[in-house]
Amino acid sequence: MFTDFKLMDDRPVSIQVKDYMKRLITKGGLQSNQRLPSTRELSSLLNVSRNTVVMAYSDLEEEGLIYVLKGKGNYVAQAAGSVADAGQRWQVDWKQQMNDHARIAEEQDLMKRGIRSSQGMISFTSIAPDEKLFDIDNFRRAFLDRMSLEGEVLLNYGYAKGYKPLIDYLMHDMENKGVDMAGKDILITNGFTEGLDILLSVLTKNSGRILCENPTHHTAIKNFKLHGFSITGIDMEAGGISLQKLEQALSRERYDLAYLVPSYQNPTGIVMSPEKRRAVIELMSRHQVPILEDGFNEELRYSGAHVAPLIASGGGNSIVYVGSYSKILFPGLRVGWVLADKELIDYLVSVKRARSIHTSTLDQSVLYQYLHNGYFEKYLKRAKSEYKRKYELAVQCCQADIPFRDLSGDGGLHLFLAFENGFDTRQLLNICRERGVIFTPGTIFYTDGGGGNTMRLGFSRVADADIVKGIGIIGQAVKEQM
Amino acid sequence: MFTDFKLMDDRPVSIQVKDYMKRLITKGGLQSNQRLPSTRELSSLLNVSRNTVVMAYSDLEEEGLIYVLKGKGNYVAQAAGSVADAGQRWQVDWKQQMNDHARIAEEQDLMKRGIRSSQGMISFTSIAPDEKLFDIDNFRRAFLDRMSLEGEVLLNYGYAKGYKPLIDYLMHDMENKGVDMAGKDILITNGFTEGLDILLSVLTKNSGRILCENPTHHTAIKNFKLHGFSITGIDMEAGGISLQKLEQALSRERYDLAYLVPSYQNPTGIVMSPEKRRAVIELMSRHQVPILEDGFNEELRYSGAHVAPLIASGGGNSIVYVGSYSKILFPGLRVGWVLADKELIDYLVSVKRARSIHTSTLDQSVLYQYLHNGYFEKYLKRAKSEYKRKYELAVQCCQADIPFRDLSGDGGLHLFLAFENGFDTRQLLNICRERGVIFTPGTIFYTDGGGGNTMRLGFSRVADADIVKGIGIIGQAVKEQM
Repeated sequence: MFTDFKLMDDRPVSIQVKDYMKRLITKGGLQSNQRLPSTRELSSLLNVSRNTVVMAYSDLEEEGLIYVLKGKGNYVAQAAGSVADAGQRWQVDWKQQMNDHARIAEEQDLMKRGIRSSQGMISFTSIAPDEKLFDIDNFRRAFLDRMSLEGEVLLNYGYAKGYKPLIDYLMHDMENKGVDMAGKDILITNGFTEGLDILLSVLTKNSGRILCENPTHHTAIKNFKLHGFSITGIDMEAGGISLQKLEQALSRERYDLAYLVPSYQNPTGIVMSPEKRRAVIELMSRHQVPILEDGFNEELRYSGAHVAPLIASGGGNSIVYVGSYSKILFPGLRVGWVLADKELIDYLVSVKRARSIHTSTLDQSVLYQYLHNGYFEKYLKRAKSEYKRKYELAVQCCQADIPFRDLSGDGGLHLFLAFENGFDTRQLLNICRERGVIFTPGTIFYTDGGGGNTMRLGFSRVADADIVKGIGIIGQAVKEQM
Repeated sequence: MFTDFKLMDDRPVSIQVKDYMKRLITKGGLQSNQRLPSTRELSSLLNVSRNTVVMAYSDLEEEGLIYVLKGKGNYVAQAAGSVADAGQRWQVDWKQQMNDHARIAEEQDLMKRGIRSSQGMISFTSIAPDEKLFDIDNFRRAFLDRMSLEGEVLLNYGYAKGYKPLIDYLMHDMENKGVDMAGKDILITNGFTEGLDILLSVLTKNSGRILCENPTHHTAIKNFKLHGFSITGIDMEAGGISLQKLEQALSRERYDLAYLVPSYQNPTGIVMSPEKRRAVIELMSRHQVPILEDGFNEELRYSGAHVAPLIASGGGNSIVYVGSYSKILFPGLRVGWVLADKELIDYLVSVKRARSIHTSTLDQSVLYQYLHNGYFEKYLKRAKSEYKRKYELAVQCCQADIPFRDLSGDGGLHLFLAFENGFDTRQLLNICRERGVIFTPGTIFYTDGGGGNTMRLGFSRVADADIVKGIGIIGQAVKEQM
């Protein structure tokens, strides 16, 4: 005994000794009422200072794990809580206890079913920001600024609705984008996904149907299914959703909601044209279908005219906007927000409180300070110029190397390629993977099982040389497969 | 125009100028193709440097909001995205679109219906930790340590399951508490509440019934209702849940789950005795009812023997433990965890991913570093001695001043008082509020509408002098009401 004690470098030694002894006691290596080595003995056995052992023993005593007999030494306390073996043999078959919600979540979990990257592979599967662009120094500064202003406040409970300075900042920012804020309010969420999830859980199912672009964001499709909605996907075309097909769908059926991604749509990368924006709002208004607008990467404009979000373009109180800083700035900070009619937000706040009390105040407040200090603008300038270069390189390589039928992507962090019908990008992936390149076959983005001939190429985290090399390898494989 | 520009102190001036001009453009104060003041003019109008205006104009141009005519000046761009008035008049009646989930969440939202405190009041309603005890300096140190080790990693996407070093730390810690970790795993959540919510959303409703202590944690009652479970509350008595009534309930009906709070139960403050712990596990095992153990404040032991959590006490794989650092350390950090059977955790991970991708990596990693550095142990020592003093003072004051029937609370951050049947603590609250003291009437904690004669006194955030004064005022009011 006492021979397997291993010291870690950077954790207080007396705590390590306490943990070690605690383990021996709770695991039964030391028995109730057994006498412990003296502090001198243990200090020599574990090769730590005697004072360290004294502190560890004192902590163990305070935790009720050992007791002291004056003049005799330290003893292991009666294992008061130990009722080991009570019901030990009963095993729950948890899989049998899982409902449809759990099953669908598991089945649709891309991280479990998706393409795995391994060391040295060129991976076009990610559309996350490139961590090399993160300005850690300014982030650290923002943290220190905020902590020195109100550290205690940040660490205690906040409000379900969100951190007030951040809400005010976002309100102001959305107003600057042209949104009429009268009668509207903001709820801060754990990223876009929580906003979507909460909204879907409060809506009455009148028709039980949701409209969306086809293809669209896989997480949205997953969450529509999880909430029991049936999904009608409307084909994408140049400039955005097909108005003709949208109108057909609207005239055939009623819908509870339309989910739209007007900027750098995932996966097509298409930015909806101003004309389509106007037409979509008019159509939805006529057919009384509220819109859920996904503000996905709308800050990532490289060029061209300013395009306002749908919610800045009329629609009364019928548009619910979900924004996020997780997708372009720091995904590790889980901060998104829902901007919508005040009355709706009021319900969403109660659901948010029931789900997770509130979003991390630390995340919210450091993000606020980062935005307030103007660091975001600086970051965005650098990020845009970097991504723009990669975007142009990727487009150029695709055009040179890959015999595609269509290429879309007006900027953003990814391109979308379509081949002739019958071409199978999953088969293509199998070949490419063997040659060290992976991408995302398009089917997962389709609401109707289609898209077998499509693929998404995320270039944000791929080095320039690898963009050239990787697209070259894909192009070669396409030609062989054709 | 340009007269209402107000400069804030600590935000870059060029960004403030850009925001100001953007607002004028999107709000229609400046028309499409209107010529903007020259940089020299605007610099004089806004009283900022000319260079600042040059930067602001350059940013506006990059955002596509203005264009430059060489040698002529800057002009407002065509408002490309503006489709104002499209569908402007359509108003959704969102309240009508809310389903039962939203309605229940709103109705059960204590923050909306609860007792409001105002300036200068002595409030016994909170059981949050006292922010004066927070050691901001060590928190800052933990942040800086972690950021310097892997800042970029922390700011990019993490894993739904959680931050690996924190998971490993918690696994080790729970093992030290005597838990057999074989076949078990951990999911990190946004605090206790998200863990509870996710678990409730995956469980098949066989009987649709949940057992719990009566009274119990209001958030748990709310979430059982939100998930459509019917609730059977079992009376509390000294040493914990009434075994006799528990056995009666178990022999009458089947249950899908039993929710138990064995330490400093909210609201009674009772710690379940070792004998009851053993008996409860044996009963549940016999009747095959899995246990959801709420690890609420189990670290807050002031004295007495070490009591292991239920999950350390057998029960096979049938116990799901939900823990949290938000309730004792820093509530602003939203970090809790679910410790349970591996197979169950695997489903919970997929649901977590569908809900909110993952818990803030910043929160998780700073918390990990704080724990690893041994700061938590130091904090806990100080917090325990402080809360112990307040606890003893509050008990002493209650015994001296309030003619209660029962007082419970073995430590923790609150006491629970019961008066004779028929005594109405809501009426008492009305009187006390007028005299500047508030507390939580007990009814909200009851599963059956009972508890009108009970109240919870949270003392963690009340100064010593106010504990004395506040309890004195309550006692006086009780005597008058009797």
